[in-house]
Amino acid sequence: MKTEILYGIHPVTEAIKAQRRTVFEILIANEKPGKRLTDIISMADLKKIPISRISQERLNKIAGTPATQGIGARVSAYPIYRLSDAVDRAWQKTEKPFFLLLDHIVDSNNLGALVRTGLGFGVDGIIITKDRAALPTPAVSKVSAGALEHIQLIRIVNMVSAIERLKGAGIWVMGMDRGKGRSILSADLTEPVGIVIGGEEKGIRPLVKKHCDDLLSLPQQGPLNSFNASVAGGIVMFEIFRQRQGCSR
Amino acid sequence: MKTEILYGIHPVTEAIKAQRRTVFEILIANEKPGKRLTDIISMADLKKIPISRISQERLNKIAGTPATQGIGARVSAYPIYRLSDAVDRAWQKTEKPFFLLLDHIVDSNNLGALVRTGLGFGVDGIIITKDRAALPTPAVSKVSAGALEHIQLIRIVNMVSAIERLKGAGIWVMGMDRGKGRSILSADLTEPVGIVIGGEEKGIRPLVKKHCDDLLSLPQQGPLNSFNASVAGGIVMFEIFRQRQGCSR
Repeated sequence: MKTEILYGIHPVTEAIKAQRRTVFEILIANEKPGKRLTDIISMADLKKIPISRISQERLNKIAGTPATQGIGARVSAYPIYRLSDAVDRAWQKTEKPFFLLLDHIVDSNNLGALVRTGLGFGVDGIIITKDRAALPTPAVSKVSAGALEHIQLIRIVNMVSAIERLKGAGIWVMGMDRGKGRSILSADLTEPVGIVIGGEEKGIRPLVKKHCDDLLSLPQQGPLNSFNASVAGGIVMFEIFRQRQGCSR
Repeated sequence: MKTEILYGIHPVTEAIKAQRRTVFEILIANEKPGKRLTDIISMADLKKIPISRISQERLNKIAGTPATQGIGARVSAYPIYRLSDAVDRAWQKTEKPFFLLLDHIVDSNNLGALVRTGLGFGVDGIIITKDRAALPTPAVSKVSAGALEHIQLIRIVNMVSAIERLKGAGIWVMGMDRGKGRSILSADLTEPVGIVIGGEEKGIRPLVKKHCDDLLSLPQQGPLNSFNASVAGGIVMFEIFRQRQGCSR
C-alpha cells in the first residue's frame, strides 16, 4: 500500500480529526514536546495510533523538508473524490452548491491557500486537472494549515467536460476573467455556482472560458490590473459567502 | 550610491513607469526578445535609459535567481516614505485615508501579495516594522507584479507609536484578530482606517492589539479558523473597497 509522510502540527492534527486517511504511525522528533505536540500525542493514544520517537535529522530526511515542527505521520494516500459523488453529496447537503475549479494552478502555495480559504467559506469541492496542476502533496497540506485533510478534492482529465457536467447538474459556472468579466459586485452569487480560477501565468484557457455561463472580474483601481491567484480566489469566495449570509449587494 | 538589481518584466516595466527610482541600465539576456521585452526596450529608448545585452548566466548571477524572464535593471535603492508625509498626502488626496499596518509579516510572498492587493484597492500606504519583517526586495517587487514600485511603503521602529500617530491624525485603527474581533460584515469601514494584519505565526502582538481602537475578524465556517495572512488581508481590503463604492453592508 502506498503511504506518504505528512508533517507539521496542523496537517497531522487535521488528518487524525478528519478520519479520512489511515494514520499508521506518528513520528515525534522532539525530545521535550511542547503543549501542541503533547496534545497530538494524547489524541493519537486515544485512537490507538502507534507513536515512534525518531531523530530530527531522520524526520527531515523522510519528510523531505526541515519544516516539520518536530512531527510527522505515516498515512495512507490522499483521498480523491469523484466529481459525480461530490455533486450528489453537495445537492444532498445544500440548496446552493459551491464548487471551485482551478484551471492549471501550478504553484503549491496558491493551491494550499485556496484550499484553506475554500474550507473556511464552505466550498463543496475543489476541482483540479490531472496535468499541469499543483498536486495535493504533504507540502500543500502544510500550506493549507491542514485544510486539505477536510476539503473534497476532485481531479479530472478535462476541465471542459467537468464544467459541462456541473452545468448539467444545475450549477451556474462562472470564470474569473480580469479582462472581460463584469464586477462580482453586480453579480448574484446566491445561486448554485462553480467558480473557475485561471492559472498564474495566463488565466483561464480560451476554450474553458467559452464554456463558462458568465465571466466575472474583481473591482480594482490603480495602474496595474491583476491580483495573485490565491488572493483573487479568496475574495470571490468571501463575496459568495457574504451574499449567502443575506448581506445585500 | 547603493543600487540594486530588479528582475522580471513587471518590476522593470513598473519601475520605469513609476519614475521613483533612477533606472541606470536595462539588462537584456534574451537574444530574440519577444513582444513584452521589445516593449520595454522601446520605453527605455524613449527615456534614454542605456540597454546592455548580457548572458542569461550573468543575469541570473547578478539577480541571484533564475526567475528573471530574461530582463533585469540596475536601479537606485527602493524609496521608503516617512509616516508623517504619507499621512499628510493621504489627507490631501482623500477624505477617507486607508493604511495597512503589517505587524511582523516575515514571508516575502505574503508581503508581495499584500502590496499587489493594496495597490489594487487604493491603499494610501503600507506600514512595516524595521525588525522581523520581510523587506521590500527585488523578489518582493516580482511577487507583487511590480506593484511595489508604485505603493507608498513606510518603515517604522515601533508599531505602537505608528498606531498612536495614525489615531492622532484622525484615523481609526482596527486589528484583524480571529479570536476576539467582530465580523467585518458588521463594521463600518467607510471611515478613515488603518488595518493591522498580524504575523504569520502568532498574529498581532498583544501590546499592539491593546492600542487598536477595535478588533475585527473574518466570517468563517468549518473545522479550522484561520486564513493565510495575504488572503485575510486581501479580503478585508476588498470589503473596505466594496463599502466605499457605496455598496451596502
